[in-house]
Amino acid sequence: MRLVYVLDTNDLQAAADFWCAVLGFERERDQQHPSYLALRDPGGQWPGLLLQKVPEAKAGKNRMHLDVVVPDVAGEVDRVRGLGAEVLRPVHEEAGHLLAVMADPEGNEFCVVQQLGGGAGE
Amino acid sequence: MRLVYVLDTNDLQAAADFWCAVLGFERERDQQHPSYLALRDPGGQWPGLLLQKVPEAKAGKNRMHLDVVVPDVAGEVDRVRGLGAEVLRPVHEEAGHLLAVMADPEGNEFCVVQQLGGGAGE
Repeated sequence: MRLVYVLDTNDLQAAADFWCAVLGFERERDQQHPSYLALRDPGGQWPGLLLQKVPEAKAGKNRMHLDVVVPDVAGEVDRVRGLGAEVLRPVHEEAGHLLAVMADPEGNEFCVVQQLGGGAGE
Repeated sequence: MRLVYVLDTNDLQAAADFWCAVLGFERERDQQHPSYLALRDPGGQWPGLLLQKVPEAKAGKNRMHLDVVVPDVAGEVDRVRGLGAEVLRPVHEEAGHLLAVMADPEGNEFCVVQQLGGGAGE
């Protein structure tokens, strides 16, 4: 079994630029279908992110989202804002974590998270 | 950086039962917050799936979903149906793959996918 996460988008190239920069992913070499753009982790650690072109715009809060867990939440929030992310909810404490709710350029929510009081967060 | 995928649910335990069975994941030992239930891959290969209890029901098609890529799509569709998944679109060919669109017990879409013409699908 292999897992791939799939994200709907209205703009494959813009979504690829954003998510490659956020995650350190790269476009796969062989892109065989005009409606899809596959991103991969060059380190091989994380499952691929497959961008899927759809006509409809995002509506409502996403039922599935990504948490990006980092050692320095404030620094990461600044970094992804520089890449085009928007802050939906600034850094706050929740369930033993510091987290900020962000949105990608199409409004897809994701969280930047720092684990408190332990070393397992990075 | 560490990635965690987060799925909203109305029923943490039922969602955990379903997704652990589908993915071969298990509940993490320390569950520290009543609104969350963390699932982990015991093999350490795949990022965790964090279930997040929300009051609102699912509405509309999910903007992000999971593809479960397997060597035998028909067998996997049967297996996950036995676990409570519903077939939204039966197995068909698309972009060099055989795939079925499924829904988990709360209606969250996911795909069961078999890659055609290559050995890299499992």
